[in-house]
Amino acid sequence: MEDALLKEIISKNGTKIVLVVADGLGGLPSAETGLTELETACTPNLDRLAKRGSAGLSVPVGYGVTPGSGPSHLALFGYDPTQNRIGRGVLEASGIDFDLQPEDLAARGNFATLKDGLIVDRRAGRISTEENQRLCAILSKEIKEIDGVKIIIRTVKEHRFVVIFRGKEMVEGLSENDPEKEGLAPLRIESLRNESRFAADIAHKFIYGVTEVLKAEKANYPLLRGFAKKPSLPSFDQKYFLRAAAIASYPMYRGLARLAGMEVLLTGEKISDELETLKKNFQDFDFFYIHIKKTDSYGEDGNFAAKVKVIEEVDSAVGEIEKMQPDVIAVTADHSTPALLRGHSWHPNPFLLISRYAMPDNLSGFSERECRKGSFGAFPATEIMPLLLAHSLRLRKFGA
Amino acid sequence: MEDALLKEIISKNGTKIVLVVADGLGGLPSAETGLTELETACTPNLDRLAKRGSAGLSVPVGYGVTPGSGPSHLALFGYDPTQNRIGRGVLEASGIDFDLQPEDLAARGNFATLKDGLIVDRRAGRISTEENQRLCAILSKEIKEIDGVKIIIRTVKEHRFVVIFRGKEMVEGLSENDPEKEGLAPLRIESLRNESRFAADIAHKFIYGVTEVLKAEKANYPLLRGFAKKPSLPSFDQKYFLRAAAIASYPMYRGLARLAGMEVLLTGEKISDELETLKKNFQDFDFFYIHIKKTDSYGEDGNFAAKVKVIEEVDSAVGEIEKMQPDVIAVTADHSTPALLRGHSWHPNPFLLISRYAMPDNLSGFSERECRKGSFGAFPATEIMPLLLAHSLRLRKFGA
Repeated sequence: MEDALLKEIISKNGTKIVLVVADGLGGLPSAETGLTELETACTPNLDRLAKRGSAGLSVPVGYGVTPGSGPSHLALFGYDPTQNRIGRGVLEASGIDFDLQPEDLAARGNFATLKDGLIVDRRAGRISTEENQRLCAILSKEIKEIDGVKIIIRTVKEHRFVVIFRGKEMVEGLSENDPEKEGLAPLRIESLRNESRFAADIAHKFIYGVTEVLKAEKANYPLLRGFAKKPSLPSFDQKYFLRAAAIASYPMYRGLARLAGMEVLLTGEKISDELETLKKNFQDFDFFYIHIKKTDSYGEDGNFAAKVKVIEEVDSAVGEIEKMQPDVIAVTADHSTPALLRGHSWHPNPFLLISRYAMPDNLSGFSERECRKGSFGAFPATEIMPLLLAHSLRLRKFGA
Repeated sequence: MEDALLKEIISKNGTKIVLVVADGLGGLPSAETGLTELETACTPNLDRLAKRGSAGLSVPVGYGVTPGSGPSHLALFGYDPTQNRIGRGVLEASGIDFDLQPEDLAARGNFATLKDGLIVDRRAGRISTEENQRLCAILSKEIKEIDGVKIIIRTVKEHRFVVIFRGKEMVEGLSENDPEKEGLAPLRIESLRNESRFAADIAHKFIYGVTEVLKAEKANYPLLRGFAKKPSLPSFDQKYFLRAAAIASYPMYRGLARLAGMEVLLTGEKISDELETLKKNFQDFDFFYIHIKKTDSYGEDGNFAAKVKVIEEVDSAVGEIEKMQPDVIAVTADHSTPALLRGHSWHPNPFLLISRYAMPDNLSGFSERECRKGSFGAFPATEIMPLLLAHSLRLRKFGA
């Protein structure tokens, strides 16, 4: 929906909306059974709700486009992902509550293992968060500034860190050095425009510095992605008149929610912690975004069975959410992550909306192949927010 | 379809197209039976045609958008409803054959009942058309002019009237005074831009004048909506090379058809009158728009059973239309009006197209939930006209 149209018809009321995002939920069939992860999982709650809710397949960015988590979440939140770019670095920095300044260029880092000039492990064996903290402490002490640019290094989680380059000349327009596959040499960070040459030089010097400082470590190489500056988005309050809260255990999603102006609630690692957080705060917000990470993580690992297990946990959680009686519940994903592909994919996302005013689609269950028979058909993920608002009676009639 | 593309491929031939619009046709299930109004109705003709026609769910303005009758009809007729705005006042004025002048600002009025400062009945008990005519006669005599602006008051139907403010300074940009709910005070008409201050003053003085003149009546307060001037749209003849006729018993729809350049045929109140009009004029036009109002009226009243009955009448009418052998018949709605919601809604419209060249969708019947399985899926209502033209072989090949 165009912003101008939304502005014309948006209104407030006392209804409650819960958007459950099971990251990377959609999958592809296992060769043995012909069933996807979601079709394999035992999901009595979702199947029951698929009878009385309206369903569809949401397309995050476009047909055939495999989105990263940034664009796919922007679409879910109703921001055009091709018009609003949020670099991974910014997401990661926001996710650890780092207050980015206008002159900051942030990049997401992986501690990786380089051997004989090749990246042999892109995650340095998924080192622990504590190990990451030890490495960041060393680097922070050894690399404080490069050619007048202040260097700030922060642990995110496991092998992930953020580096912030603080300096007036640090602009966007850098390529990444992650070869995306193991057994390949790291790429060279290139300046994509004239103005970013200085920034590229600083990045090269930073990478060289890290390899010098960490040369005796297993985690001896920084893979840098998503060099970016902070964008400005209208908040959920401004755009939708919604007091919105985010419940996410994983930093990047907290970061994205914060960029959309959501209040990020303190929560734990487990789905049950997230549910507890929802219960405790249920009265204080109009809109809740609940993010479940593990569906995606196991998809990325190619672990079909573990992904099935997490989906079953999601199913129980949705049953619990239903008991809190929000006016609208939606269950969907930001993008698909089929275990078969061990990564994000372009496949559209199963989407289910439950509300008193939803057309009951009478689907035989909640799955990729049932959802395509639903009322909404295949539709852009950017239309999810308008649908949630409509079903909570928050959109006035357009025109006479 | 873009106008430029249409212009490139449009052609004429001798085929006939009939578009049946059952206003507010789509609904939501009854709590007792789980069936919608359309699913409940006995519709042997539509069900039979749903086997051999192509179906879909048409989205009038956008996902989640509840359209008024103006925008939803513009979409049906192939005009972008967010780019072409037609105020309710203009629709109502056109519907009573009032010839709007460039300096006219028209508003739709409801005779309402004000008691102790609150609107206790927004329709003054749905007064009769005769009673409305009596009140308009009194007002026309008592309020002829305000500060140089000529005031013209005309009965529409039941509690509805039109007021035309004729004066050079009467421009668009006024808010409405209808609180939309009973038990609330009327709103204050505000000027939405600097240029409309004078117009707002005239409106205030008019409202005050009416309350003075009608203070002894049950219908003692004018609710004014949709202050607007006449827009200019390319006609059906210009846009589609179609000699188009409108058959509608309710004024507003005649008005809208006239704005699209259709010839408005004289007809009666009943569906059978409309059929008679179609039969009599069948040879003289290429395109017929037939509007059935009562499906919407009963939906707005929350009268599920009465809406079901009207749908059954529509079904018989479609059977009769089929016998006239037009090349293309389409049956759909402008928007949904579920009895459950007692008003327009955002739910997409069941759409059925019958033509020798339509893919037979073999649906088990004509309903919201069957149509979603049809060839067209969920699709924008603005694509209906291109589909009608294509199935009547009026669109040439694009490109070599």
